[in-house]
Amino acid sequence: MKLNSEQLRDLAVGAAFLGTGGGGNPYVGRVMVQQCLDEGLSVEVVDPQDLTDDTLVIPTAMMGAPTVLVEKIPSGQEAIFSLQRLEKHIGRKAQATMPIEIGGINSTIPLLVGARLGLPVVDADGMGRAFPFLEMETFGVYGIPGSPMAVSDEYGDCALIEAVDNRQMEWLARAVAIRMGGCAYIAEYAMSGADVKRTAVPNTLTLAIRIGEVLRRARVEHRNPIDALLGFLPTTLYRYGRVIYAGKMIDVQRETKAGFAMGCALIEGLAPFQSVMEIEIQNENLVARVDGKVKAIVPDLICIMNTETAEPITSEDLRYGQRVTVLAVSVPEIMRTPEALKVFGPSCFGLKEPFTPIEEID
Amino acid sequence: MKLNSEQLRDLAVGAAFLGTGGGGNPYVGRVMVQQCLDEGLSVEVVDPQDLTDDTLVIPTAMMGAPTVLVEKIPSGQEAIFSLQRLEKHIGRKAQATMPIEIGGINSTIPLLVGARLGLPVVDADGMGRAFPFLEMETFGVYGIPGSPMAVSDEYGDCALIEAVDNRQMEWLARAVAIRMGGCAYIAEYAMSGADVKRTAVPNTLTLAIRIGEVLRRARVEHRNPIDALLGFLPTTLYRYGRVIYAGKMIDVQRETKAGFAMGCALIEGLAPFQSVMEIEIQNENLVARVDGKVKAIVPDLICIMNTETAEPITSEDLRYGQRVTVLAVSVPEIMRTPEALKVFGPSCFGLKEPFTPIEEID
Repeated sequence: MKLNSEQLRDLAVGAAFLGTGGGGNPYVGRVMVQQCLDEGLSVEVVDPQDLTDDTLVIPTAMMGAPTVLVEKIPSGQEAIFSLQRLEKHIGRKAQATMPIEIGGINSTIPLLVGARLGLPVVDADGMGRAFPFLEMETFGVYGIPGSPMAVSDEYGDCALIEAVDNRQMEWLARAVAIRMGGCAYIAEYAMSGADVKRTAVPNTLTLAIRIGEVLRRARVEHRNPIDALLGFLPTTLYRYGRVIYAGKMIDVQRETKAGFAMGCALIEGLAPFQSVMEIEIQNENLVARVDGKVKAIVPDLICIMNTETAEPITSEDLRYGQRVTVLAVSVPEIMRTPEALKVFGPSCFGLKEPFTPIEEID
Repeated sequence: MKLNSEQLRDLAVGAAFLGTGGGGNPYVGRVMVQQCLDEGLSVEVVDPQDLTDDTLVIPTAMMGAPTVLVEKIPSGQEAIFSLQRLEKHIGRKAQATMPIEIGGINSTIPLLVGARLGLPVVDADGMGRAFPFLEMETFGVYGIPGSPMAVSDEYGDCALIEAVDNRQMEWLARAVAIRMGGCAYIAEYAMSGADVKRTAVPNTLTLAIRIGEVLRRARVEHRNPIDALLGFLPTTLYRYGRVIYAGKMIDVQRETKAGFAMGCALIEGLAPFQSVMEIEIQNENLVARVDGKVKAIVPDLICIMNTETAEPITSEDLRYGQRVTVLAVSVPEIMRTPEALKVFGPSCFGLKEPFTPIEEID
């Protein structure tokens, strides 16, 4: 499938939704890919099932605080540089690239890389959402080493990390990304087509496009976009979603710390919702509580949407006074296994509450 | 020259002196090399003038806070791993290794690498002392890029840094070293024999051995070791030295911050010295002041020695109550040129005072 401009706009919206607040600003990424399309370049999206087993796939991404990304716009060459550095190290050319997460800008960075280098982009990712840490990839959960990994900045500096495990890779690469200004561009988890089919969350690029499309069409046809989206989700791997809260943003605390956007959002309920919802943020929305009671928790999606426009709001764009609706969505089964929860369940973020599927929460 | 155990002991003392407080604890390094000698391995020290122009020399070193090193003893494999990682990247085997600084443990790490890998160690270094930052190498001052550079820890993690300049290399590598626990092992400034001859401070390994020997012999012969050392210095590239203070340590402030041992030592003068000397430390002793007046300043050496034993004291070993004598020594001309002062003069450490040669200070 060749991506067109409408699909790209839909993708940016859908990826902001799946990013659950994180993954970096999708607007920046959309504009960069649109520029490629305007130059006559094309983005070829391929189904993971169509990959031959020995295809070399090198995923590409932004790494860092979403709050930094919007002030430090990429040149567009950084991720390409990282991919090429990794190719040089491996001694083999990539035959495709792929998102590591389907959130925000990280759904579009591989499109940019693919367009500029003439590489197809695999319709899959390694998170099925966005997560703050690089070890939180389904790739890693199911045995793929993230190393060797390349981290590059806009000047041409590059660090090639070879770590003993994926946590240590994240730990070292994060330090480099911080010193590169709080946000850098990476290539990692180089793997075969066979491994992509085994470990990736499939068809999330097209899913993000469909989500954007569902919201857009509902708006055009004067239907409620959020209802339309909730009606659409059961036809996907993300089988279940519902509105868990609606109200007014009454406080946002946000701090860029240790290379992450850390924070907390407070939403005052509007009828029928009462009290105040508190959402804890580490790049992504991690847990939503009302009166100390969990209403949704990572890895399930917690998506804050503008009540009036039904646009997903990423964490760096949360503002006092916004009217918001909070959706919770169940993630695919591949992301709820014991192995998966050991890598990106609540305790991995220092949360005390256990994972409870959104379907089982009142 | 094959190094023997006595020379190794002398080297550890001389390197602690030339390290001006920094370079990492020389005892740890000495023990590691002694173990090699005990195993029947040998350390071959070669004069830089004997290198053929196309010899590939890869210097090796410890990078980090000396305060950390003494609590996190190296396995001995880290620097070897970094050298081999760099060999792999360059696609060529090293034919020699070399110190990047002649201070503390960093005078002995290359000996360990040389002994284990059967590589000769060049009798020269890139600082003529110790400095806290990797861009402060005479190699870099005279045009050698520090990158590509390998940083390794005791687990086998490795980051290969390719930076646009030597300051950026230091900036990125330091972040990695901090995350590796505050001290890591590196290989960098790979260069030809011709470049060694052009850019290194020559014969500093043998100089350190001679300094240790001069102090040892004077002790054995019941002469004053510090006087003996001051008498010896004019026969070297370090032409001039004198006692600038003597007294009692009355305060040491020390903090491991941003990967460095930062601090301040206060010495109360004993007659004929009056008032209090304040020595500012960033790994190394940077400036010595009495009543706000500079008594010696970087890059000239400021060496704190135990008054009773004439042993040099490294910054992590400074203690309240020690009787100390402070020597200042002029560095070789290659380290006082305008190009050199631009890279490691006082302003590079945030000091407001200009460089004044110790010969010109009252």
